[in-house]
Amino acid sequence: MEQVAATMEQVKLLTSVNDQHGGVIVELSEPIDSGIFASMLRISISEWRKLGKKGVWIKLPIELCSLVEVAVKEGFWYHHAEPTYLMLVSWLPGGAHPLPPNASHRVGVGAFVMNEKREVLVVQENSGIFRGTGIWKFPTGVVEEGEDLCTAAVREVKEETAIDAEFMEILAFRQTHKAYFEKSDLFFLCMLRPISFDVQRQEAEIEAAKWMPWDEYVAQPFVQKTEFVKHISDICLAKVDGDYTGFCAIPTASSGGQMGHVYQNAQGRRR
Amino acid sequence: MEQVAATMEQVKLLTSVNDQHGGVIVELSEPIDSGIFASMLRISISEWRKLGKKGVWIKLPIELCSLVEVAVKEGFWYHHAEPTYLMLVSWLPGGAHPLPPNASHRVGVGAFVMNEKREVLVVQENSGIFRGTGIWKFPTGVVEEGEDLCTAAVREVKEETAIDAEFMEILAFRQTHKAYFEKSDLFFLCMLRPISFDVQRQEAEIEAAKWMPWDEYVAQPFVQKTEFVKHISDICLAKVDGDYTGFCAIPTASSGGQMGHVYQNAQGRRR
Repeated sequence: MEQVAATMEQVKLLTSVNDQHGGVIVELSEPIDSGIFASMLRISISEWRKLGKKGVWIKLPIELCSLVEVAVKEGFWYHHAEPTYLMLVSWLPGGAHPLPPNASHRVGVGAFVMNEKREVLVVQENSGIFRGTGIWKFPTGVVEEGEDLCTAAVREVKEETAIDAEFMEILAFRQTHKAYFEKSDLFFLCMLRPISFDVQRQEAEIEAAKWMPWDEYVAQPFVQKTEFVKHISDICLAKVDGDYTGFCAIPTASSGGQMGHVYQNAQGRRR
Repeated sequence: MEQVAATMEQVKLLTSVNDQHGGVIVELSEPIDSGIFASMLRISISEWRKLGKKGVWIKLPIELCSLVEVAVKEGFWYHHAEPTYLMLVSWLPGGAHPLPPNASHRVGVGAFVMNEKREVLVVQENSGIFRGTGIWKFPTGVVEEGEDLCTAAVREVKEETAIDAEFMEILAFRQTHKAYFEKSDLFFLCMLRPISFDVQRQEAEIEAAKWMPWDEYVAQPFVQKTEFVKHISDICLAKVDGDYTGFCAIPTASSGGQMGHVYQNAQGRRR
């Protein structure tokens, strides 16, 4: 009998893995009745408490959205969500928790690419607010999940114009707020050195792409009348004229061992 | 009869406001039966389609988590979540959508604050990975929702040490990945000029705070043996010795009219 009871209890525990901070992570993937899930969750929480576990994460695929209510009733709250899943979390010790805050910023890059004829690489977009305006602008885009800023700038230029280019510097960046709802935005202006020169536009997003004489680019009303665009075109010109130093990218390991980059003035490169 | 039918239909539409991109936003706050919500949502979608609406956003407070399943069944997916709510979205025209991507980065700041005696402002934290290590480190913290980087650095120094300080420059920044789950991290090293000098630690988070001779700070094994910490201490020293230029902060309006800052080398300040 004791054997049977133990087996039944085991069946009722949710499968979890330990995280590096004294907590556990539960990733559900198979459909499960919400009543059964509620029992399993309650028994699991009791077990995790005995083990001294602290933070409990539950990753619920959107297909299992019927279980959200069960978790919330057991004291879980939302940590973050992506299109395909919702991450819930609970702090078993109660009180103030040291759990990581949610992501607060989306991140974009713009690419300043000039050839030796003082022509700048520009595109016309065929969707969004620039569609149909005839405005020529720098290639821009959103940094993908897990992507380095310097890599994102090179990728966007390649995707939109087929130009191969090498990342040189971040010339400036801008932080703005309420980019959508309550989230903020960081936009990094990158200078790239072109390696190839034959422009081919990407048909999906780009109406046209070309090398354009710098003076013609700057003369556009869009550049002259948009404070931020005028501002960064001044920075680009200062860079071309040799009067400006941005931040270069230096590969580095984080304390967690993940690779990343430090961006800094090359003056500080002592090592 | 026609009047009654029209009234009943009106009652069944969800309350929504138009957004600036041809879509609508529904913010639910009052409890509602999930069957009734399902009917209202279906009728509303039909109405929005007639009106040519595109993106539909539904903000569901966590108290109404029982409605998540209803929205998902009607084709909605998760866009983002915060502790108190889940934002769902649907793109009525179908196919690829131009909706804004979710926030991908959390953002932190660290503050380098030195007085005229070449002493640096340091703290010992009483929680997290530094608890009980005896390590003296720069004040650091997470940028709050809607907060400027330059403001965040000043706030963290004030909160942790009671020192008033003025933001001067961003000396460098670091991007790392998988800071938690799939999200990335941006950490900005800020130089601040102290305005007051009487250190008082914040009891909640800080074990101790003081001015420490620079050489003593750098001599700590934590600084010497942690690649990134050693790296930024070299940058700080270069700055103190006058050999380094970071990015200053220039207030600017975004195209949407929100205020923000451009961070750039002061060389580019032509206006």
